[in-house]
Amino acid sequence: MGSKIAIGIMGPGLGATKLDCDRAYRLGAEIARHGWVLISGGRNVGVMDAANRGAKSAGGLTVGILPTDDRWGVSEAVDIAIPTGMGSARNNINVLASDVTIACGMGPGTASEIALALKANKKVIILNDRPESQQFFQSLSPQRAIVVDSVEAAIAQVRAIVDRFE
Amino acid sequence: MGSKIAIGIMGPGLGATKLDCDRAYRLGAEIARHGWVLISGGRNVGVMDAANRGAKSAGGLTVGILPTDDRWGVSEAVDIAIPTGMGSARNNINVLASDVTIACGMGPGTASEIALALKANKKVIILNDRPESQQFFQSLSPQRAIVVDSVEAAIAQVRAIVDRFE
Amino acid sequence: MGSKIAIGIMGPGLGATKLDCDRAYRLGAEIARHGWVLISGGRNVGVMDAANRGAKSAGGLTVGILPTDDRWGVSEAVDIAIPTGMGSARNNINVLASDVTIACGMGPGTASEIALALKANKKVIILNDRPESQQFFQSLSPQRAIVVDSVEAAIAQVRAIVDRFE
Amino acid sequence: MGSKIAIGIMGPGLGATKLDCDRAYRLGAEIARHGWVLISGGRNVGVMDAANRGAKSAGGLTVGILPTDDRWGVSEAVDIAIPTGMGSARNNINVLASDVTIACGMGPGTASEIALALKANKKVIILNDRPESQQFFQSLSPQRAIVVDSVEAAIAQVRAIVDRFE
Repeated sequence: MGSKIAIGIMGPGLGATKLDCDRAYRLGAEIARHGWVLISGGRNVGVMDAANRGAKSAGGLTVGILPTDDRWGVSEAVDIAIPTGMGSARNNINVLASDVTIACGMGPGTASEIALALKANKKVIILNDRPESQQFFQSLSPQRAIVVDSVEAAIAQVRAIVDRFE
Repeated sequence: MGSKIAIGIMGPGLGATKLDCDRAYRLGAEIARHGWVLISGGRNVGVMDAANRGAKSAGGLTVGILPTDDRWGVSEAVDIAIPTGMGSARNNINVLASDVTIACGMGPGTASEIALALKANKKVIILNDRPESQQFFQSLSPQRAIVVDSVEAAIAQVRAIVDRFE
Repeated sequence: MGSKIAIGIMGPGLGATKLDCDRAYRLGAEIARHGWVLISGGRNVGVMDAANRGAKSAGGLTVGILPTDDRWGVSEAVDIAIPTGMGSARNNINVLASDVTIACGMGPGTASEIALALKANKKVIILNDRPESQQFFQSLSPQRAIVVDSVEAAIAQVRAIVDRFE
Repeated sequence: MGSKIAIGIMGPGLGATKLDCDRAYRLGAEIARHGWVLISGGRNVGVMDAANRGAKSAGGLTVGILPTDDRWGVSEAVDIAIPTGMGSARNNINVLASDVTIACGMGPGTASEIALALKANKKVIILNDRPESQQFFQSLSPQRAIVVDSVEAAIAQVRAIVDRFE
């Protein structure tokens, strides 16, 4: 008994690159293999969709926290859809519901989620190759913004954080 | 694939009666037996706690949408905790995330959830013995506020609604 | 210096009766005459629109807290529009932003606002002629749900509550 | 008749520098002189407090959208307090309620507000001397993130945007 560890994958929808989606799929699968619940923005595009499909490929449990007030546009790979009807204000719920957040790729929504997680005093794993993203978030929070360059490094960081909870 | 059917049980926390809690436990167990996900306000008191314990007693999957910004005060029987940090504004998410909402017992928070579900054009099953509650909500929405007097009748109503989705 | 006293008028939009709108207009004007800010849901229909027009007729200051993410559908008589993008979850903000809430007329949205105000331990003045509404909310909170039968009685109740703040 | 133009000033609370606060005070005064309403996060610290004091020094009208569920911690220079009870999710309301947002200084909350404004397809004026902030937000949205280096330049940009509304 007791609620499960939940790891968030946040990243762009339509603006995601192929590399972002490949990484998100592999991150989702790793999260599932560790027995963690996947939290995402739940939409059927980009990083959100890829992460959920990756998690389901490994038998995981997936939660999608939607900006809309119904299930319109939810990824087929989301098990539990949480329509919020709050638009981008739901980004704050995404990070509060995640024990650790991984940002995969970048866009305005993703940047807001990283910033909101840091504001909530949570660690964020930033899987992103653009130096301006790395430098900005590390300047914002040298302790809690953790830049990595691979799926493996991201999961190693999550494990190190989660181990401290258990 | 595709997101699961989710049924909400809403009811008072500290103000719940023993009858409210007994009914909530049995409702939770029935929801689990039907393979539906349980949505609730997630706290470790009253109807919320009883419904989650009932669902877990029958092997169900439970989601708790919390008013707080962390897991403080979550029921031990919640599998997936969604801290929202929004206080009572999360009541609107409770009902949007539920395909059907069952109100078990009454209090200001529960009344807000029934009203918000009706506002969102959703059906609400009201398991409540007080005539002033029955009359008020039926006057508010004769079509969508469905008053019942037993756990069995509540579940029969949920099944009739859910059958139409499938 | 210091923030102004704010009084909320909550009531139906399209479902408002002519009597609801007449009362809302007069309530808005009285709120303005007392120097209080008017808080409402801000839309250009029903009680919301009438209350704002009444307040402006007496030179008041009006704030509309909108469910939408832009100013679409705002009453012409709203001075300060606060789009929230949160749908009905904004009903909780309506009541938190009001030192006292007056419910004028009834519908699912209005019922949710009364219930959310009671949940937040605030007093609500209920100007409503239907016995089932009066009985339900008085049973929910005998101390804080105050039923009145005229604009004059509603304003007298607001004054009595506000006098205690000052 | 019709709602007033509202300009947001967003910036850090306790983390604000003296330069941030000096600029915020002058920005607030300029906003008031133009007859625009000031929107801010409303707290009695840092950029929020300075901006509101500046606006009141020039006879402006000030709105504070608070993270808390009551007026605790509101700036003395806020005329209209809007407690939301939503924590940092209120940052999305801050930017939706602002026709144009000016970010003055930097921190996790401010970064979330810039990102949320860009996500909502709104222009943001960034008054910030740190190159990593300038480069990051310009990479995120070359069209809508406008970097300036003085209060005068910020106000000139706001005027250019607002002129197009009128």
